[in-house]
Amino acid sequence: MLVALAGGTGAAKLLRGLARVTDPARLLIIGNTGDDLDWWGLHVSPDLDSVAYALAGRLDPARGWGLEGDTFHCRDAVADLGGETWFSLGDRDLATHVRRTELLRGGATLSAATRVLTAALGVAARLCPMSDDPVRTRLRTSAGWLGFQEYFVREKAEAEVYEIVYEGAAAARPAPGILPALAEAEAVIVCCSNPLTSIGPILAVPGIRAGLERTGAPVVAVSPIVGGAPVSGPAGKFLAARGLPVSALSIADLYAPWLDVLVIDRRDTGLGPDLERRGVRPVLAETLMTDGAAEVALAGAALAAVDLEP
Amino acid sequence: MLVALAGGTGAAKLLRGLARVTDPARLLIIGNTGDDLDWWGLHVSPDLDSVAYALAGRLDPARGWGLEGDTFHCRDAVADLGGETWFSLGDRDLATHVRRTELLRGGATLSAATRVLTAALGVAARLCPMSDDPVRTRLRTSAGWLGFQEYFVREKAEAEVYEIVYEGAAAARPAPGILPALAEAEAVIVCCSNPLTSIGPILAVPGIRAGLERTGAPVVAVSPIVGGAPVSGPAGKFLAARGLPVSALSIADLYAPWLDVLVIDRRDTGLGPDLERRGVRPVLAETLMTDGAAEVALAGAALAAVDLEP
Repeated sequence: MLVALAGGTGAAKLLRGLARVTDPARLLIIGNTGDDLDWWGLHVSPDLDSVAYALAGRLDPARGWGLEGDTFHCRDAVADLGGETWFSLGDRDLATHVRRTELLRGGATLSAATRVLTAALGVAARLCPMSDDPVRTRLRTSAGWLGFQEYFVREKAEAEVYEIVYEGAAAARPAPGILPALAEAEAVIVCCSNPLTSIGPILAVPGIRAGLERTGAPVVAVSPIVGGAPVSGPAGKFLAARGLPVSALSIADLYAPWLDVLVIDRRDTGLGPDLERRGVRPVLAETLMTDGAAEVALAGAALAAVDLEP
Repeated sequence: MLVALAGGTGAAKLLRGLARVTDPARLLIIGNTGDDLDWWGLHVSPDLDSVAYALAGRLDPARGWGLEGDTFHCRDAVADLGGETWFSLGDRDLATHVRRTELLRGGATLSAATRVLTAALGVAARLCPMSDDPVRTRLRTSAGWLGFQEYFVREKAEAEVYEIVYEGAAAARPAPGILPALAEAEAVIVCCSNPLTSIGPILAVPGIRAGLERTGAPVVAVSPIVGGAPVSGPAGKFLAARGLPVSALSIADLYAPWLDVLVIDRRDTGLGPDLERRGVRPVLAETLMTDGAAEVALAGAALAAVDLEP
């Protein structure tokens, strides 16, 4: 079994590549739920959905979120009625949240609800929320305390970020199956997601970090930083908020106690000695996933980096 | 001021006619909320919405509910995910429930939320729920106890009906403005709605029946029964559950203590003496509203029946 730690859009692309180079049934994906939100009374799990939609072959390629070809009639009508629409949901995407919320209200855990949704979407990989308990990433910013989506979507990631907390994490338990999977994995792959707001919430769930430290499996991460800048999103601001430079070296610093291999971008030459000093073996690869072939190539490189056959 | 008591589809047509023969700003409509339901976690008020959509010129003419030209992408996607879709909501219609629920969660009363929605829809008439407190019509049937929509939509009104109750009615208060409007009205118009499941819940709210008995205004009802059969819907079954024949005379029996005039269908000749014996003055009219002109004509006949200029 291959265990992956995943955020949203970037992870979704790498996982789509992994599901093509290897049997997707071999994948157990631990998804970030720190970005989850209650929106229009519905439980929305943006990162779980991006991963599920990507693996179902239905992620919108232009937006990087939501379903391809979706319409926005409901959102537009809510706007006409004076409602809040800064968080945008397509009409078909909305159905995912309706169904999830229906299952949760019926007493299902988020894990169980996710299994129902991924099965209906035809996803062969197993997608697990990091926890069935609520954990919410909150940011202290120049615009006050904000939930992740408030910061990222409503405020367009423009505010300065001073502090990142994972509310609820201390009391959260890893979702069922996660710790056994880490213990029995052939390899663990940390996707090229934001280390502080995508992977950080997962690591904040008590037991998961220890599971990574204890596992006998090799742990490989793919760096989301290319040439001193994040591939996408506000990772730079979050690293700065922790006093870390925007460099693949910071990824190694954050993951060092349990990381074996870091796949860094082929443009980031010269980091090798610094990574090795941190106990992390560097592997160079093309990390920009500009098309399906690039996703497959990077997924293959991540597996090869830990000597795994696809 | 003209005060109307209204259910859903049938009332919506008569009210659309009224809003054309007279200044719609003169209308205060007391809407039935006994059919309201929690659906997909949203507060849905089917009767209020049918009336509001009709007055906004946006009611779907074929279905008699929902918005004209709406799509059902969300519903279809919920079905694909294995969710419940027996109660059908269009994508744009859904926005009404999203916005209403958002307002209610923000602390608004149903009256206040309805004002926001009708204003956004450009409805000039004032639409009031009968109460801001929850009242739910429940039916004891051959398929067990059912909520109104469960009976009417999910079970397609096929079960036998033994008993009709208005859960919560005893503790409900009339929505603000209703009792003063009844006291000051020029006329009260009881729409051609189901007497037991559309008008019945309104009358079950303590104070409203007394308001009708006390008002100095003439009270005119339009019969929903034509020639011994309801124009539409399961009114016949409900009358039978109360031991009442399916006849305009039963409408008079139910409304007699406060009813002055009953507009009956031109086909229902010969009921005059029986109605007069009940203290109700009969007026014959064409009550089948097959088009906009018929809606206007029937609305005009209802006003003329109480000697009101449009």
